[in-house]
Amino acid sequence: MAKIKDLEAKFARTEEQVRLFQKISRLMARDLSLQDNLHSIIGLITDFMHCDSCLIYLMDGDDLVLCAANNAAPNTIGQVRLKIGEGLTGWVAKERRFVAISREAFLDPRFKHFADLPEDTYEAFLSAPVIARNKVVGVLNVQHRAPHAFSGLEMELLTTVGEQIGCLLLLSRMPASALQEANHAQLALASMVPVAPMVR
Amino acid sequence: MAKIKDLEAKFARTEEQVRLFQKISRLMARDLSLQDNLHSIIGLITDFMHCDSCLIYLMDGDDLVLCAANNAAPNTIGQVRLKIGEGLTGWVAKERRFVAISREAFLDPRFKHFADLPEDTYEAFLSAPVIARNKVVGVLNVQHRAPHAFSGLEMELLTTVGEQIGCLLLLSRMPASALQEANHAQLALASMVPVAPMVR
Repeated sequence: MAKIKDLEAKFARTEEQVRLFQKISRLMARDLSLQDNLHSIIGLITDFMHCDSCLIYLMDGDDLVLCAANNAAPNTIGQVRLKIGEGLTGWVAKERRFVAISREAFLDPRFKHFADLPEDTYEAFLSAPVIARNKVVGVLNVQHRAPHAFSGLEMELLTTVGEQIGCLLLLSRMPASALQEANHAQLALASMVPVAPMVR
Repeated sequence: MAKIKDLEAKFARTEEQVRLFQKISRLMARDLSLQDNLHSIIGLITDFMHCDSCLIYLMDGDDLVLCAANNAAPNTIGQVRLKIGEGLTGWVAKERRFVAISREAFLDPRFKHFADLPEDTYEAFLSAPVIARNKVVGVLNVQHRAPHAFSGLEMELLTTVGEQIGCLLLLSRMPASALQEANHAQLALASMVPVAPMVR
């Protein structure tokens, strides 16, 4: 019986993960504003992770700027800035690696404290780079007030969502006209190596 | 014991589904050619579905053109064309709905037969629209030679992959310079409604 309960719990969690990916894919296929999409993603991650904080930093030149959060204090969005390599968040951007700290994240030598972010007193910290076209364009953070051992599933999920946010950033830069004019078939076929010799 | 085996099988299948979404997200975060990405996706779907055929049609004006396939005969890629509303594939594009037929798909009144596509004699047919920016830009088909009852999981999966392919199409239209010049933070913050009154 214990084995069945354990399996059922794992199965339910994996199904939740599938739902989350499906919902973000649906956002990507729609035509919403980037801010709306970032907020929807933060809501989805917060529900899935049961975390106390979820923050998205995006690049502005060599700086990371806080652009979206689950419950940010006014005056932090667009204001909190980090250099690449500065703090845990800057480290993730610089090294292009995720970081998972289950307790006392604030004692990590890479940590940087901001007086205006209460999240900086939280125990557990999970962070993944936001990637677009194979480049780091931001950082996605999840934090828990109490100690929390992040699972492999949670780490993988944040990594994938970091990639999905990168795609959303690129998509939001495309003018609406790009799709109207589009010949999608030509685009796909143009990059193809012919399989049969061409008749000349 | 039967219950445990059944649960284990469902859990394993759902984990496979997660892996598939993660792999496609990774493709989207890289900078590969559209053809390479379409072929990778066809390979991933074929493995996941154990199907005999996987075809991607993309729009060219009002036509759907066969652009990628798991084992297409030469002279079919770029050549097989359907009007919107023509055949099962054209119906999916026109109605923006998926279709799942478990046997004798070729008897469906919406079906259109091409002499050059052996897939047209196959029994089972699953098809989902490819969506980008909330518009149909193509169709993704999976076929089995023998009758096959498609599961809800398979239908959902094809729907999501159709959305992911739509994003890849859009992403492949962006010039490389778009990312180099990009100030991602400004882009996200520009669309934001200010939370605190602005000082003037």
